[in-house]
Amino acid sequence: MLYKTIREEAFEANREIPRRNLAIYTWGNVSAFDAEKAVFAIKPSGVDYDDLSPESMVLVDLEGAVVEGKLRPSSDTETHRVLYREFSGIRGITHTHSAYAVAWAQAGRGVPVYGTTHADHGAEEIPCTAFMGEEAVKNNYELETGNLIVETFRVQNKNPRHIEMVLVAGHGPFTWGKSAALSIYHAAVLEEVCKMAHLTVALDPQAQPLPGYLIRKHWERKHGVHAYYGQQ
Amino acid sequence: MLYKTIREEAFEANREIPRRNLAIYTWGNVSAFDAEKAVFAIKPSGVDYDDLSPESMVLVDLEGAVVEGKLRPSSDTETHRVLYREFSGIRGITHTHSAYAVAWAQAGRGVPVYGTTHADHGAEEIPCTAFMGEEAVKNNYELETGNLIVETFRVQNKNPRHIEMVLVAGHGPFTWGKSAALSIYHAAVLEEVCKMAHLTVALDPQAQPLPGYLIRKHWERKHGVHAYYGQQ
Amino acid sequence: MLYKTIREEAFEANREIPRRNLAIYTWGNVSAFDAEKAVFAIKPSGVDYDDLSPESMVLVDLEGAVVEGKLRPSSDTETHRVLYREFSGIRGITHTHSAYAVAWAQAGRGVPVYGTTHADHGAEEIPCTAFMGEEAVKNNYELETGNLIVETFRVQNKNPRHIEMVLVAGHGPFTWGKSAALSIYHAAVLEEVCKMAHLTVALDPQAQPLPGYLIRKHWERKHGVHAYYGQQ
Amino acid sequence: MLYKTIREEAFEANREIPRRNLAIYTWGNVSAFDAEKAVFAIKPSGVDYDDLSPESMVLVDLEGAVVEGKLRPSSDTETHRVLYREFSGIRGITHTHSAYAVAWAQAGRGVPVYGTTHADHGAEEIPCTAFMGEEAVKNNYELETGNLIVETFRVQNKNPRHIEMVLVAGHGPFTWGKSAALSIYHAAVLEEVCKMAHLTVALDPQAQPLPGYLIRKHWERKHGVHAYYGQQ
Repeated sequence: MLYKTIREEAFEANREIPRRNLAIYTWGNVSAFDAEKAVFAIKPSGVDYDDLSPESMVLVDLEGAVVEGKLRPSSDTETHRVLYREFSGIRGITHTHSAYAVAWAQAGRGVPVYGTTHADHGAEEIPCTAFMGEEAVKNNYELETGNLIVETFRVQNKNPRHIEMVLVAGHGPFTWGKSAALSIYHAAVLEEVCKMAHLTVALDPQAQPLPGYLIRKHWERKHGVHAYYGQQ
Repeated sequence: MLYKTIREEAFEANREIPRRNLAIYTWGNVSAFDAEKAVFAIKPSGVDYDDLSPESMVLVDLEGAVVEGKLRPSSDTETHRVLYREFSGIRGITHTHSAYAVAWAQAGRGVPVYGTTHADHGAEEIPCTAFMGEEAVKNNYELETGNLIVETFRVQNKNPRHIEMVLVAGHGPFTWGKSAALSIYHAAVLEEVCKMAHLTVALDPQAQPLPGYLIRKHWERKHGVHAYYGQQ
Repeated sequence: MLYKTIREEAFEANREIPRRNLAIYTWGNVSAFDAEKAVFAIKPSGVDYDDLSPESMVLVDLEGAVVEGKLRPSSDTETHRVLYREFSGIRGITHTHSAYAVAWAQAGRGVPVYGTTHADHGAEEIPCTAFMGEEAVKNNYELETGNLIVETFRVQNKNPRHIEMVLVAGHGPFTWGKSAALSIYHAAVLEEVCKMAHLTVALDPQAQPLPGYLIRKHWERKHGVHAYYGQQ
Repeated sequence: MLYKTIREEAFEANREIPRRNLAIYTWGNVSAFDAEKAVFAIKPSGVDYDDLSPESMVLVDLEGAVVEGKLRPSSDTETHRVLYREFSGIRGITHTHSAYAVAWAQAGRGVPVYGTTHADHGAEEIPCTAFMGEEAVKNNYELETGNLIVETFRVQNKNPRHIEMVLVAGHGPFTWGKSAALSIYHAAVLEEVCKMAHLTVALDPQAQPLPGYLIRKHWERKHGVHAYYGQQ
């Protein structure tokens, strides 16, 4: 079996979607990227998570051609492709319709850093894109979704290695990471952070973000040069 | 066993109600329709989902007569009957008391298309009926519930093949589809969409619906002539 | 084993508390009443639901004496005793700390009949008591909790056979019924109705109760002389 | 195996974190303290709960030295150490990121005693610390988190034997008790009380705390000299 590693990584990560309650039915997809071969393995479109196997993953190259696979790839494949091309260093992407993340996306609001749970995984607001314009939607919707994410990061001067998640306005979350497993981890983190932020603004609509020094401290202890969280 | 197919379809779909957390105890029912024989199989009234079998489904014709079955059919049978008569092409109907859908129904509010999760399953607001008048309640309540739904679609100029769900004001949701399985799928979709919409208006009471071109795009990619979601 | 029936009924109903997520740890209790012997079986105080057995239930008479049992009965035993004495015809009582019911109790608000889910189980507002006065608390707190419930029904002119649930202000719910199993059923109904009502007022703080004719219709079709819900 | 008892207590209590849904992934930790040996056993940093064993717990003394263990202890170890030094009599500490407790912490608000569920476990408001200052964060963050908790109790004149939980502003909850098992019990209590309080203020933003005599009554019946809850 060719592309065995990314097939298995994508398969395992897709199975986490229902286990972590990040989407019902088939409403989410994960891909895993092999940078050397410039190919990614992605969930087939509309197939139940229980019916997936490493063999059923679809292999797509960076020009969007199906390299291997009998099934049609996820309808969001073009979005994944743009992100692998534009965000160097990422090896996995997850898209879900988890409820709290969708609520922030539907309200068109980025998520401020209200606490250390957020800061542990990103030292800045989780960005929300603008609503896509009519021309882009009619042109090539899924590819333009990728472009919209890339443009949002450019305009907001954000680094996709530092904040590995985004809300697409009116749609929902995309997350990524150094592996497919980390991209689904970030999808679960995002949902939990969105839930906590939702409960926080319900208590206090004027809630303030954490002071910058606290945000940086939590980010650094997990991701800085002198990180001391975990076993490495 | 006569009507074997619709008995089994209704049985399987009813079992999904507790699995999908769409009702506690016996608070929901599904039917499956055989259009050729003009007969539908429906859950018996007040029986636990765990105690159901294909054999225990009750067969009812479009005049409301029990064709086969020892048990009393669901108390909502007359509502199902009206919908099978009036909404041509539907083959399954589900009624539940899922909490978020009930909340919108109790507030008497239709659900605007706040995001693509909704647009993937319907390109328009999920309608909510008016509260039923006193005469109709006293006349034939469950049949009039069906009439109220039909009237709501007529007045709002809605097509039941395009938006396969409704909220009955002060009561809860009815959903339908081309099979019993699709009707329960729509019941789960509706609950998830109602939850997302509830969380959205909590964040922003002035939240705006998606632009029409985005709504149409999502609807078309799943249901249009050139749909490209899934494997067919 | 004496009082075998009520021991088993109380045991089974207590086990439903964690299964229905109506309380964590040991925060709820159910009793079953034998009207002929004027004795009820109740959960022992502070014992985990997993460690219960029919044998461990404590038998208490209507004067509050332990008739049989080595363990100390629930600290709420006196409340149960008052209700069995004052509300004729009830055979089971449940007390839980389910979250939505507690929220309404903590806000000191009765629950209006916002929908048919409520009306199916009671044709009127779920009453909330006043906050208990200082003398009563210091006198005999648990017995006075029972008196407060009885007084609330008297002052509000409510019939405990028609509305089989109450919220004790600042505390939480008590429910009852013609059996221990029905009392725990009513505890689960109350939690679901309180959740639906909470979600409804979040959508519309001015939400109106159902029209009276709709409330009566739903109550009658399940509980009236000509009830036609279920199989009897 | 040395320190067998506290290793096993810490292991068992850490396993309760995912069972009670108090944190996802590795976002919580429990320690157990041996007062005679002045050593505590704590979760290793960043290790999944499923991969824990009594042997993998890390033993740390009150000067912060690792006494035994190959793995790095929890990044929150210094906070635990300060609390064992300053709050005499406690034998277990739990830190989680449960969502409702985090929401109150992110809003920077203590939790008033809105009901008896709270009063059963503490006769006063659950305190929330101030946001930590920049110098303290840069100095020794985790140790200063402990100092902040101790200072909060000093300034608010609170007794850590009477209210065994705290919210650290912008971060989340720490709880403790006479054993590791009781500290995790208090973490679950805190989350439930925070959820109930959140639902209460949503219903009534001006909700008032329980009268003092009711608070004291519930506290005394479980924890007073004449306590009569439970079997001892």
